[in-house]
Amino acid sequence: MDTPRAIPSVSPLLKTSALNDSSENTASGQGPLLDSIAGPADLRSLDETQLAKLAEEIRNRLIEVTSTNGGHLGPNLGVVELTIALHLVFETPQDQFVFDTSHQGYVHKLLTGRKGPEFDNIRSGSGLSGFLAREESPHDAFGAGHAGTALSAALGMAAARDQLKSKDHVVAICGDAAFTCGITMEALNNVTAATKRLVIVLNDNEWSIAKNVGAIPKYLNELITNPIYNRLHHDFGSLLQKVPGGDQLVRLGKSAEKGWKSMMVPSSLFEKYGVRYLGPIDGHDLALVKRYLEFARDSDEPVIVHVVTKKGKGYKPAIDFPERFHGTSPFAVTSGKPAAKTEPSPPPAYQDVFGQAMVRFAKADSKVIGITGAMPSGTGLIHLSNKVPKQFYDVGIAEEHAVLFAAGMATRGLRPVCGIYSTFLQRAFDQIIHDVCLQNLPIVFCMDRAGLSPNDGPTHHGLFDIAYLRMVPNLVAMQPRDEDELVDMMHTALSQKSPAFIRYPRGAGEGVPIKSEPAALEIGKAEVLQDGDDIQIWALGPMLKDARYLADQLSQSTGQSVGIVNARFIKPIDTDLLLAQAAKAKLVVTLEDGVLSGGFGSLVAETLSDANLATPLHRIGWPDEFVAHGDSVSSIRARYGLSPEAMLEGIKAKLKIFSLT
Amino acid sequence: MDTPRAIPSVSPLLKTSALNDSSENTASGQGPLLDSIAGPADLRSLDETQLAKLAEEIRNRLIEVTSTNGGHLGPNLGVVELTIALHLVFETPQDQFVFDTSHQGYVHKLLTGRKGPEFDNIRSGSGLSGFLAREESPHDAFGAGHAGTALSAALGMAAARDQLKSKDHVVAICGDAAFTCGITMEALNNVTAATKRLVIVLNDNEWSIAKNVGAIPKYLNELITNPIYNRLHHDFGSLLQKVPGGDQLVRLGKSAEKGWKSMMVPSSLFEKYGVRYLGPIDGHDLALVKRYLEFARDSDEPVIVHVVTKKGKGYKPAIDFPERFHGTSPFAVTSGKPAAKTEPSPPPAYQDVFGQAMVRFAKADSKVIGITGAMPSGTGLIHLSNKVPKQFYDVGIAEEHAVLFAAGMATRGLRPVCGIYSTFLQRAFDQIIHDVCLQNLPIVFCMDRAGLSPNDGPTHHGLFDIAYLRMVPNLVAMQPRDEDELVDMMHTALSQKSPAFIRYPRGAGEGVPIKSEPAALEIGKAEVLQDGDDIQIWALGPMLKDARYLADQLSQSTGQSVGIVNARFIKPIDTDLLLAQAAKAKLVVTLEDGVLSGGFGSLVAETLSDANLATPLHRIGWPDEFVAHGDSVSSIRARYGLSPEAMLEGIKAKLKIFSLT
Repeated sequence: MDTPRAIPSVSPLLKTSALNDSSENTASGQGPLLDSIAGPADLRSLDETQLAKLAEEIRNRLIEVTSTNGGHLGPNLGVVELTIALHLVFETPQDQFVFDTSHQGYVHKLLTGRKGPEFDNIRSGSGLSGFLAREESPHDAFGAGHAGTALSAALGMAAARDQLKSKDHVVAICGDAAFTCGITMEALNNVTAATKRLVIVLNDNEWSIAKNVGAIPKYLNELITNPIYNRLHHDFGSLLQKVPGGDQLVRLGKSAEKGWKSMMVPSSLFEKYGVRYLGPIDGHDLALVKRYLEFARDSDEPVIVHVVTKKGKGYKPAIDFPERFHGTSPFAVTSGKPAAKTEPSPPPAYQDVFGQAMVRFAKADSKVIGITGAMPSGTGLIHLSNKVPKQFYDVGIAEEHAVLFAAGMATRGLRPVCGIYSTFLQRAFDQIIHDVCLQNLPIVFCMDRAGLSPNDGPTHHGLFDIAYLRMVPNLVAMQPRDEDELVDMMHTALSQKSPAFIRYPRGAGEGVPIKSEPAALEIGKAEVLQDGDDIQIWALGPMLKDARYLADQLSQSTGQSVGIVNARFIKPIDTDLLLAQAAKAKLVVTLEDGVLSGGFGSLVAETLSDANLATPLHRIGWPDEFVAHGDSVSSIRARYGLSPEAMLEGIKAKLKIFSLT
Repeated sequence: MDTPRAIPSVSPLLKTSALNDSSENTASGQGPLLDSIAGPADLRSLDETQLAKLAEEIRNRLIEVTSTNGGHLGPNLGVVELTIALHLVFETPQDQFVFDTSHQGYVHKLLTGRKGPEFDNIRSGSGLSGFLAREESPHDAFGAGHAGTALSAALGMAAARDQLKSKDHVVAICGDAAFTCGITMEALNNVTAATKRLVIVLNDNEWSIAKNVGAIPKYLNELITNPIYNRLHHDFGSLLQKVPGGDQLVRLGKSAEKGWKSMMVPSSLFEKYGVRYLGPIDGHDLALVKRYLEFARDSDEPVIVHVVTKKGKGYKPAIDFPERFHGTSPFAVTSGKPAAKTEPSPPPAYQDVFGQAMVRFAKADSKVIGITGAMPSGTGLIHLSNKVPKQFYDVGIAEEHAVLFAAGMATRGLRPVCGIYSTFLQRAFDQIIHDVCLQNLPIVFCMDRAGLSPNDGPTHHGLFDIAYLRMVPNLVAMQPRDEDELVDMMHTALSQKSPAFIRYPRGAGEGVPIKSEPAALEIGKAEVLQDGDDIQIWALGPMLKDARYLADQLSQSTGQSVGIVNARFIKPIDTDLLLAQAAKAKLVVTLEDGVLSGGFGSLVAETLSDANLATPLHRIGWPDEFVAHGDSVSSIRARYGLSPEAMLEGIKAKLKIFSLT
């Protein structure tokens, strides 16, 4: 079945799968059945064979589109039958689906009127969002991008439905990884108090982005493999299947069965939360999933349906390399290998430099520990995990715990380094204030994805961290100008006795060589990259490249002498240098890859004002709105008035106001 | 046993309590036994009778001190025997205790060298913190004030201990409410992956601050009342007690017993997380608790000991009114009634005005829903809970869920109002950005305790919210000048189609009458309270009182014409008025009860700079450091240079710099 073809064939690992592998629809574009689906209602006229055929068409479309655009292929291949079944059993938008994280919503998009060119261009500027979004479709009841929110939001919807005495259904579709996240468990604790009717689909593929960690995934696996549970389930399933009117019968016998189950087998975790547990069932057996969902829909108590799916189902490379195909870059369909790049290979990514430096620091000092929340590959800590596994912890999708866990370690003299994306660290804001900074514990935070995550969009951009960190006492916050300075900053941070935060962007560095021995930076000292007197440009990280362009252009066109400063430290800012420069300068310009409100330029404004300096200030950064997804950093910047040319015009306009041109 | 005495006697509700009630030590000051305890080691020379006597002395001391200072009486009365047992079995500071929230750490403080006048003055400026604090004692391994952090931090310590190949013990002492909080569940998921040795004490008193809610507390109660479990426990306990070398014997038979238990009774939730469960046991039976802790200490796997305690144990009023005595104000020891006040009764508190307004809004519109996280009394939502219970939800200590639950409701057209303290809302920072504001969902947040919580200190001050909210797109943020304007703001917020945040301080309002019909405020419009030209003072909320004082003093002493503006809106700020005033003024002054870094004054600096106005600005607010606890708002302000006189001097100094005096 795994013979290579133009599009690798479906590989049904679960033997009971309803997926029909004999179809030959491998042509590009959507198949004839998918073509006929204008909305979920159209699904209901298809027979079983047609539905199986549709599933294959959808898989081909997913592979084709993500091979060009990149995207969350693995998770979507896993939920094809599940999503079809959901739309067969429930009627959106009257009924509401809440997909956790919602990267697995591509199939849902295809089935709800979004299968045209906007799907071909998913995650690019002219296409759909890679996640659900309320403004995109009435079928998207709740948007997401961060994990663990679905059950909680769905519970709010269900409680609202009850308040409004409406009859519709609310379905939360959660991956198993969502149950490693505290919010889901907070919601689970509240289910029975908040509603009598809620359908929870536990889409169990044993992976978040990396392989899931911790007790809950292990427990779920026990449920799947426990022979008693499986036999019970099988009997229950058969009953539903074979007996005419089986649904009703089973419902009558429900409490008896419940008691019997809890006598005979380890009672389910979910039942301790008052939620009726059904499963596990094969998530690729469309008819079976449909029957279970119908039963859950008609239940008069909250029900969790445990559906086992295969991440990457139907595409062998995605099954073999589940982490790479969780969110993939463009790839060659036949081989599954990353698409050949026409450009020369880029410099090493910040992520790899960080991960490799962690290996060096950890080998040199056994007290150095790397911690991530389900992001070993994304953050680059996979290098540490491979080379020094004893000094590496992946705590799952649990940012609050990750930070507190690090705090506990720091009290014992270890040197924990948390590798967490800027946007996800928002989850640990209270722990940063209340546990880390208040107690002044020396933890290093390496904040990946500071700045834009172009294709992912507003849920993933890291634009708030400068503003949310600089208000917190005791911490040091910095941003390197290149990947070599990143290592210097890690070295500097690891010798601090206070919390230290380092922010850096996603992807390629500047291509500079990494020194063999990192340098210790003086805390709070900026670096003058170019002397000048009239205009002083203070920039952070990759914005320094723009600073150089602006400086050149400004000195050429206005004749002003322009200085460039690598600010390095957001907190503490180099007040001495700033004030000395500002006292003589005609204009100070700040450049930051973060929101203007409360950001780095705002800090400069405060500093100048406090020092009674009236030097004009021009702040460049992101405006007070959520920034949509797009093709690239440069295209999104251009859309928001942050192209190099637009920035230059802005500065010139400011100079004009002060009659400086 | 409940006969009234000078100090009401201990009332052992659990019949097996080891507490000896016959002692007559009711004199003020500490008793002779407590006097002799310089540190935990001294406990180990006391016999059972003496330990019981010590427990009573401690209870008397707790009652005496909190009757004068206020404080967390109920929780501490409940853990007297537990804390003694912990210190008998473990040796701090080599071993580490992590108390969840740590308001129940008074007994621990008394036993670790902090029983002198610093304890008499606990929570006042000259006394101990009301929580554990690392800088206070080496016995305080981890500080806290927010709930749910202990297990996570303790797990970090245990993992660090293992990394360091040390032999010491780490004990997390968590209330049952901690298990309604997601962080605890994230930590629980990671226990077995992170360490083989950890002692978790589940101090189960069935209350957080309010009565606990949700499935987990219900489940714990089932464990306590389940006869099979209790009998098993009893047998197990007897074995430990009666057989010489029982510990070892039981350890040998452990796995057998484990299997047997899981065959016979509903297997414990905790065992699904790989944590061995022991209990429930009577937390007031000192000898029993000690034996169980010894067993847990010597286990080679993570163990949870379920200890049932009585909140308020030993003081009848605290048992009868557990919520009031969770954190009490000063009271009369004999009656338990609030201490008679010498001052005239203060105006109604913001909390009560908010709660009563919620009743009105909810009665007028069935779509208005109140949501709190375990704070019905503290927030004032108790009024709603009493009067319109169907439109009230208490979700437990689960701020992230509270906000997401509201978000789900808002998508269905309901009008949720979250009543959450400013400092606790830090927990939901990501949900505010990623779920509420990105989706622009109309939720109202009423943020209590904005400004200082004097006696509680840095974990409870609400000083960051202006800074952390104003960076987030789409939201409206405001602060009322008095309790009548609070109701206007609630009315205004409830008619918004965007998220709205209202911050207000703890305690008494200004004593103004509440209009019978609230007024709708124009969004983003400030209110001029006093005309003036030279100096414009922009103030928020209670700082307006200071603004009036400063204005009077400044016009008297400098002859300048001083305007006063009630800013009302933090976001959007009234740019038109600000710029019009600043264009003519010699100085703008901002007054806020929040951090200066990124706060309201910072926003004014940004606004002036963006408009190219060089008008001098003087920002008054909290400096870049954590603010300690103290007696009162005014005493803490004075300590940080924010007394009215100091503020006046600061403005005068600024005027002098610009030669304006």
